[in-house]
Amino acid sequence: MSIITITTDFGRQDYFAGVMKGVIRRINPLVQIVDLTHDIPPQGIAQAAFVLYSTFRYFEDKAIHLVVVDPGVGSERDILAVEAHGQTFIGPDNGIFSYILDEAETFEARYVRNKELYLPHVSLTFHGRDIMAPTAAYLSTGFKFLEVGPLARNPVRLAPLKPEIEGDSIKGRVIYVDHFGNLITNIPSKELEGFQADIKAGPVTIQGLSRSYDSVDPGTYLAISGSSGFIEIAKSMGRAESPPDLGYDTEVVVKRNKN
Amino acid sequence: MSIITITTDFGRQDYFAGVMKGVIRRINPLVQIVDLTHDIPPQGIAQAAFVLYSTFRYFEDKAIHLVVVDPGVGSERDILAVEAHGQTFIGPDNGIFSYILDEAETFEARYVRNKELYLPHVSLTFHGRDIMAPTAAYLSTGFKFLEVGPLARNPVRLAPLKPEIEGDSIKGRVIYVDHFGNLITNIPSKELEGFQADIKAGPVTIQGLSRSYDSVDPGTYLAISGSSGFIEIAKSMGRAESPPDLGYDTEVVVKRNKN
Amino acid sequence: MSIITITTDFGRQDYFAGVMKGVIRRINPLVQIVDLTHDIPPQGIAQAAFVLYSTFRYFEDKAIHLVVVDPGVGSERDILAVEAHGQTFIGPDNGIFSYILDEAETFEARYVRNKELYLPHVSLTFHGRDIMAPTAAYLSTGFKFLEVGPLARNPVRLAPLKPEIEGDSIKGRVIYVDHFGNLITNIPSKELEGFQADIKAGPVTIQGLSRSYDSVDPGTYLAISGSSGFIEIAKSMGRAESPPDLGYDTEVVVKRNKN
Repeated sequence: MSIITITTDFGRQDYFAGVMKGVIRRINPLVQIVDLTHDIPPQGIAQAAFVLYSTFRYFEDKAIHLVVVDPGVGSERDILAVEAHGQTFIGPDNGIFSYILDEAETFEARYVRNKELYLPHVSLTFHGRDIMAPTAAYLSTGFKFLEVGPLARNPVRLAPLKPEIEGDSIKGRVIYVDHFGNLITNIPSKELEGFQADIKAGPVTIQGLSRSYDSVDPGTYLAISGSSGFIEIAKSMGRAESPPDLGYDTEVVVKRNKN
Repeated sequence: MSIITITTDFGRQDYFAGVMKGVIRRINPLVQIVDLTHDIPPQGIAQAAFVLYSTFRYFEDKAIHLVVVDPGVGSERDILAVEAHGQTFIGPDNGIFSYILDEAETFEARYVRNKELYLPHVSLTFHGRDIMAPTAAYLSTGFKFLEVGPLARNPVRLAPLKPEIEGDSIKGRVIYVDHFGNLITNIPSKELEGFQADIKAGPVTIQGLSRSYDSVDPGTYLAISGSSGFIEIAKSMGRAESPPDLGYDTEVVVKRNKN
Repeated sequence: MSIITITTDFGRQDYFAGVMKGVIRRINPLVQIVDLTHDIPPQGIAQAAFVLYSTFRYFEDKAIHLVVVDPGVGSERDILAVEAHGQTFIGPDNGIFSYILDEAETFEARYVRNKELYLPHVSLTFHGRDIMAPTAAYLSTGFKFLEVGPLARNPVRLAPLKPEIEGDSIKGRVIYVDHFGNLITNIPSKELEGFQADIKAGPVTIQGLSRSYDSVDPGTYLAISGSSGFIEIAKSMGRAESPPDLGYDTEVVVKRNKN
């Protein structure tokens, strides 16, 4: 049994996610469909890229990931199908797969141009339903990847996740704010292994890493090795996010000193 | 394998949607369950009717659609089961299936009164769980449609979706506001095929139809043939909705002139 | 085919719920996964306990319920696996299973300490993904319950749901506020069967129980036997909740008089 995951900025109130499932199941009634999230901020390409990057490796080989954050729908932008990490990714060519591609030793990207895969009527505004969902569904039934369309030699790429490292100083930024108000940075936890660390994030200074969210007093800021492999700024029993000083894109500087 | 879709105004925070899935799976462990949405505005019968209307045709033959927007639960209102378009629909008799019925060449509607289909204990306030979910589940196992209850000769109907057309002038209204703030009207796109069109929606005037959301400057209003087959008012990279002047039920007038 | 339900306070915007599904399906591709809710208020242990209590009995025998509301993740708190009511429950040992245990004639609780069940790398902050999800998945494939870890003789317990009853007077409280703003109390409806009842909830006084939400004038408060077996305070066509006087934890006093 194969699996298709879906990630969108459609929200939950409308029928957009539901109708894509109808399209998929009509083509492959046996496929399992898993919602990753439909609550990517509208047009939030970087956030979608990070969600996908934090998630895909936990899914089985041959999983198919359908990602529809597509502010350019109906314009000249292309649609990509990518094979990488033993899995398949389908979505608009707007940078959404950047972090997946950055980490792949090899990958094959193709433009989805084979009209046999499309629904008979393609709307101007909903290629998720009319092109991407049926393409994912046909691929889940064994349709040959190389027949989706021509090779895409230069998929659009976002700036890489890497922070700037100069000796003992690491300069990064907040790349994602989660539901609990925790601030996920682009600083890999492994860069701090075996070091003491002083962390500055906007107006907040934190000394050392904590081992759990409740290891400091309630209301106190802490830094911790987060579940996606990056350093995370949190507040015990509260929300660390506090715009405009501390939130998405805030600079985070770490000074590391040998133990 | 059969499929049951679920549409409600239950929101996501409670256990209401989850418990209906438990009831369904206990009766038919093999059925696939697809959430269309649980975020219909509370008591939003017209919105639920539109979501269902925009979605059902993308699902497979014999799909069963369970729709629980039921402000009159426990009162005299009846529960309907409807066969139309090769599919089955179950929900309260409050107009929720109006647009499905309007478009059906033929249909058969029955009152759900066969108590063998009910859970042993029927609560006053949750017929979605106690009557509608088990009815959908039993129908998915092959229970005979004509045994759910007597024929319903006059299901409750909402006003039809049709706009008023007088020569070159079409007067409609906004029937749905989506997650992106786009305003979906009841004016079918095909009425404007081959015409130039001037569109007035509340305080906004738009000349001509666009081909994509980003074909005008960011922040500019546009009109486009939307994915559900109706004219849609949108704002490039923003929300078109702006209450109280421009939102649900705002009048939309189109003047069409031959090219 | 087996089933795993998931209840969390993760919200829907992030990848947390999705990634747990990836972990589960990788271990058992055939299991059905049902979301109960991911919108428990952050750290809302009592609310999660109530959702689970109101739901589990509608699911099939052998259903596995995974509940991740875990403010103490990474601290000394243990993780429990519980067999009760013919089903299995997995979550942190923080009281989340209290109402399930209160109602069980017998149960067996074990600490999840068998590291063979864990993912190879266990993060500090996401045991839902790294320990609880794989444990649930292995149990769904037939892994022996008694091998998850040692017996837990004193699981953490919340105060019981029971109200104080003294003759004709029942003193309870609001234990849950649902999406519609209805206030669910801990007063079992069966305590009022065959009685007249006067109900005081914060500033509101209600005489007698209603049979449906719309049996009083719109905007009027009413009391009704709710779908989870408890008395519920509602407002016809509106939200009964009105903080700070009337909401979660508000005292509710019922005077019952024989008919």
